[in-house]
Amino acid sequence: MNFPSNIFNSHPKEDGDFFGGMTRILGFKPKKLDIYKKAFLHRSANVKDAKGNPMNYERLEFLGDAMLGTIISRYLYNEVPEGDEGYLTKMRSKIVSREHLNELGKDLNLIDFVESRIPRSHFGDNIHGNVFEALVGAIYLDRGYKYCEKFINSRVIIPYVDIEQLEGKVISYKSLVIEWCQKQKKTFNYHVYEDTGKDVLKHFAVKLTIGNNVVAKARATSKKKAEERASKRAYFALQNKIDKSE
Amino acid sequence: MNFPSNIFNSHPKEDGDFFGGMTRILGFKPKKLDIYKKAFLHRSANVKDAKGNPMNYERLEFLGDAMLGTIISRYLYNEVPEGDEGYLTKMRSKIVSREHLNELGKDLNLIDFVESRIPRSHFGDNIHGNVFEALVGAIYLDRGYKYCEKFINSRVIIPYVDIEQLEGKVISYKSLVIEWCQKQKKTFNYHVYEDTGKDVLKHFAVKLTIGNNVVAKARATSKKKAEERASKRAYFALQNKIDKSE
Repeated sequence: MNFPSNIFNSHPKEDGDFFGGMTRILGFKPKKLDIYKKAFLHRSANVKDAKGNPMNYERLEFLGDAMLGTIISRYLYNEVPEGDEGYLTKMRSKIVSREHLNELGKDLNLIDFVESRIPRSHFGDNIHGNVFEALVGAIYLDRGYKYCEKFINSRVIIPYVDIEQLEGKVISYKSLVIEWCQKQKKTFNYHVYEDTGKDVLKHFAVKLTIGNNVVAKARATSKKKAEERASKRAYFALQNKIDKSE
Repeated sequence: MNFPSNIFNSHPKEDGDFFGGMTRILGFKPKKLDIYKKAFLHRSANVKDAKGNPMNYERLEFLGDAMLGTIISRYLYNEVPEGDEGYLTKMRSKIVSREHLNELGKDLNLIDFVESRIPRSHFGDNIHGNVFEALVGAIYLDRGYKYCEKFINSRVIIPYVDIEQLEGKVISYKSLVIEWCQKQKKTFNYHVYEDTGKDVLKHFAVKLTIGNNVVAKARATSKKKAEERASKRAYFALQNKIDKSE
C-alpha cells in the first residue's frame, strides 16, 4: 500500500494547522497528535501501521462510544435522582442516538479533518457521528478520563442535553412562548443575528422581545437552537405569570 | 414504608463488619459507605430516600455496567492492536456476558451482603452479576475512574480474561496437556488442595506433575480454574517439545 505522506510524516505547516484545529475543537492542547490523526483516518485511505495492522478511526470509535456512554450515564445518574434504571437507559440512548451524534459531529465540522480516498460528498450522514465518537476515544487515550469528561460536558451536555425536551414533556419552548403571547395579546419578536465572535464555530444570537421588554437573549450554533434557548429562558422567566394567568 | 434501621442507621458493630467486608473485596478502603450499602439493597427491601425516591442497587447497576464496558474496551484496545471494531465488540460482550458477571459476583460471595425481604434461595442467578455491576457503580461514585479501573483489573481482567480462550482457539489447556502426555506415553498427575491463606476468597492450589517432574503450579478460586491455569503454564513450557514432536 501507499502510505500517504501528507498524513503522518512531519509537515510542519500542515501539522500546525491540524494542531490548531484540534486545540480549538477540544478546548485544550492535544499531547499525542498522532492519536487524533487516527481519529480522522477513513478506512478508504488504506493506511497500515508498522506491523501491517489496518489503521483507521474505527477502533477509536469503539472506545469513544463506550466512554461517551459512561459519562452520559454518570450525568443522568446525578441529574435525575428519581429515574429508575429503565428511565436512565432510555434517556441515555436518546442522547447518544446516531442522529444526535451526527448533529454533534456536523456542528463541529469534523468532516473537514477526515482523510480518505473517497470524495466527501460520497459519505453518508453517519460519518459525522462516527468521527465524533473516534475523537472522544482519542481524547481518552491521549489525556485520560478527566479530559474526556470535560469535553463531553462542554460539547455535548451543556449545549445539547435538555432533560425535559428529551422526556418529550416539552417539544418546543418557542411554541409555548408564542402561545402565551397570543393568549395575553402581547406582541413578540425574535431578533436573530450572526454572532460568531472568537468562537471556533459559527454562532447565532437571538434577542427575544415581548411587548416592549427584552425578556431573554441566547446564543447557539444554529438559528433554531438559539431561538429555542432564548424561548426556554423566557419561558422560565414568565413561568410565574403563566401560572397566575391560568 | 418501614426504613430498615439495621441498614442505614449507625450501628457501629454492623457498620464495622460491612466496612471490613468491603475493604477486603475492594482492596482499598471505601470512603462513602452509604453508596456501597445501596449497591447491595434489593428492591424488595422497599427503602426510599428522604425525597421518597426508591432506593436500591438498580441505578448503580446501570452506572457500573457502563463503566465496566469502558474499562474492558480500553483493555481490549491495548491488548489486541490487530482486532477491528467488530472483533473488539464481540470480545467485550463475551467478557461482560451475564454468565461471566454472575460467576464474578458468586466468586466474591457478594450475595452475603444483599439486603432484601426475599429469602436468598429465591433469587435467580442474575443477582450475582447485577450486584457486581452495582458495586462497580458504587466505586465509580465513591472513588472515581482510577479506582474503578484498578478494581476491574484486579478482580476481572487478571483472574478471568484469557483472550485465546475467549477467541475459542483454546477450549481447554488441560485437554491439550493430557493429549500431549498420552501421545508421549508419560504419566501425569494433578494434585489439588485447598490453599486459601490470607485471601478473602477460598482458593485452591494445583501442582501438575508429568513423569517425575513438577512442571507447573497454580492457584485460583476453583479447582477447575486452578487446573486450567496450571495446564496453561505447562502447555507453554512444553510448547517447544510439542512443536518438535509433531
